[in-house]
Order: sequence, then C-alpha cells, then structure tokens
Amino acid sequence: MSNEFSRPIDDRYFDDYVVGSTYEFPERVQVTEAEIVAFGRSFDPQSFHVDPEAAADGPFHGLIASGWHTAGLMMRLYAKHYLSHVASLGGPGVDELRWLVPVRPGDQLRLRTTVLEARLSRSKPDRGLVRTRAELLNQDDAVVLRVEALNFLAVR
Amino acid sequence: MSNEFSRPIDDRYFDDYVVGSTYEFPERVQVTEAEIVAFGRSFDPQSFHVDPEAAADGPFHGLIASGWHTAGLMMRLYAKHYLSHVASLGGPGVDELRWLVPVRPGDQLRLRTTVLEARLSRSKPDRGLVRTRAELLNQDDAVVLRVEALNFLAVR
Repeated sequence: MSNEFSRPIDDRYFDDYVVGSTYEFPERVQVTEAEIVAFGRSFDPQSFHVDPEAAADGPFHGLIASGWHTAGLMMRLYAKHYLSHVASLGGPGVDELRWLVPVRPGDQLRLRTTVLEARLSRSKPDRGLVRTRAELLNQDDAVVLRVEALNFLAVR
Repeated sequence: MSNEFSRPIDDRYFDDYVVGSTYEFPERVQVTEAEIVAFGRSFDPQSFHVDPEAAADGPFHGLIASGWHTAGLMMRLYAKHYLSHVASLGGPGVDELRWLVPVRPGDQLRLRTTVLEARLSRSKPDRGLVRTRAELLNQDDAVVLRVEALNFLAVR
C-alpha cells in the first residue's frame, strides 16, 4: 500500500493511476449544522436534513446531512487531492454509492481512495478510464460513504 | 404506463410504489451560470465547473454543472414530487449513476421516475425497500442523468 503519488497533482496523468494503489489524505472537512440545513433546503428538504427539532424525533434521532451533501464533500477532497488538476476530462458516473453511517453536525471527514481499474480508451487513445473506490471516513474511522467513481483522464 | 400516484405525497407509503409504474413530473428546474459556479466552488472546483473562460477552451467547450450539482437538482424534484413526505426512512445509496449529457447554464430539467423493485424488509417488517430509476431530462428531451435510487419507506 503506497500513500504517495509518484507525481504531484499538477503533473498527474492517466499513467500515474496504478491499480491497487491506496491513498489516504490527511485533510479533514468539518460539516456544521448550518451547512447541513442550507444544503438540505436547496436540494433535499426532508425533515431530517432541514429541521433539527423534527429530526430529533425522526428515524435518525437527530439532524443528518443529505447523502448528496456528503457526496459533495467527498468530491471536494477528491478534486483537491486525488483527481489530476491538469488531465481530468470529466466523469461518466459512479457505481454503488452507499451512505453507510449518518453524517452529523461536527463530524470531521477525510478521504481514502483505491485505484480499482485503469484502462486505455479504444475509441480515443489520448485518454483512459480510471475506476476508483472512494471512501469517506469520520473521526471515529467509520466509513460513512463508499462509492466507485469513474474518471476520464488524459494520457501523459 | 400510469402518470398519477393513487395517493397524494402526504399520504403515500411503501404500498403505493407499484413496480412498473412510470411518472413524469411537469415542474422544470432551471440552472444558472451563477448557481453552477457557486456549487462548483463549494464542492467540485474543476475549471469546467467554475471558470467560464477556461471552460470555453476545455473538454466540454463551455461551462457545465458538476455532476453532483445535477444529482442535487434531481433530488430536489424527487423529494418534492416522488418521495413520500410522511414515510421516507432514508436511502442506503444509489447504483449506476450516469451523467449522460452535460448540463449547461439555462438548461431546464424535469424528472421521470420508474419503480423497478419494491420488497418488504425481512428484518424490519414495518418498512420496505424501493428501487427507482430516476431520469432527468432537459428541454430537448435528452436524458442528462440516470440513476437507480434506493429508498426505505414505511408501510401504511
């Protein structure tokens, strides 16, 4: 298990994503009640995302972040630390996105990634597709989100 | 193909999600350049999501919404029109989320859902799991996002 890319993120290409490599990034993002409520109001206004009082009596016994908010926080770290800043050509999607543990106000989340697959495009030989398992861990080392993300990346 | 639930969203339970039913909701959400940039800065600051000038020379020939922003807009409509307002017990995740067509400033997006699967929980007989294909269509009737969403719902 390596924990350093061979290349910095400003000089990282398809070629640098090696199957089996795992990275864990030290930065932690903290999520506040105000952010959870604001995101919920914009995109996912279920009571357990937007109303702390109602949430206390709800299925999660308190306010929890929308799963899409948690996914956004994952993406923030993924874009900052893992995904090349020079070779990203967009992502066609993700598979098996799972919200495993509720994310609550004050939680501190960090990112772990594992390269599952890397294959050159047949139709466009200037790029390849990388499949990454991304996991978001909280301050108790519980995996709160797991997903397999797909990214197109330019070759060097 | 039905286009009306038998029950209003404030009286809708697991029992009302019938496999094979398809619904298309007339509300359209419009996404602006400012919203795309704001979401991108918070969660996905790749140049083609946050910098219109750089995006013009980028892989999508213009600014496009983060796929997570598009997913959030899907969820806004899904929570407003499709997902029960009284019986939702959270979602464990989604499968096969695909961003099929870029979403650009000014696009108008609407939701179509199809119930793929509905099964009672064995361990918790007060609820069931519903698997839904959700599609977001733009003003040209192109499917821009497709996903299979999982939701726990209380039985009536």
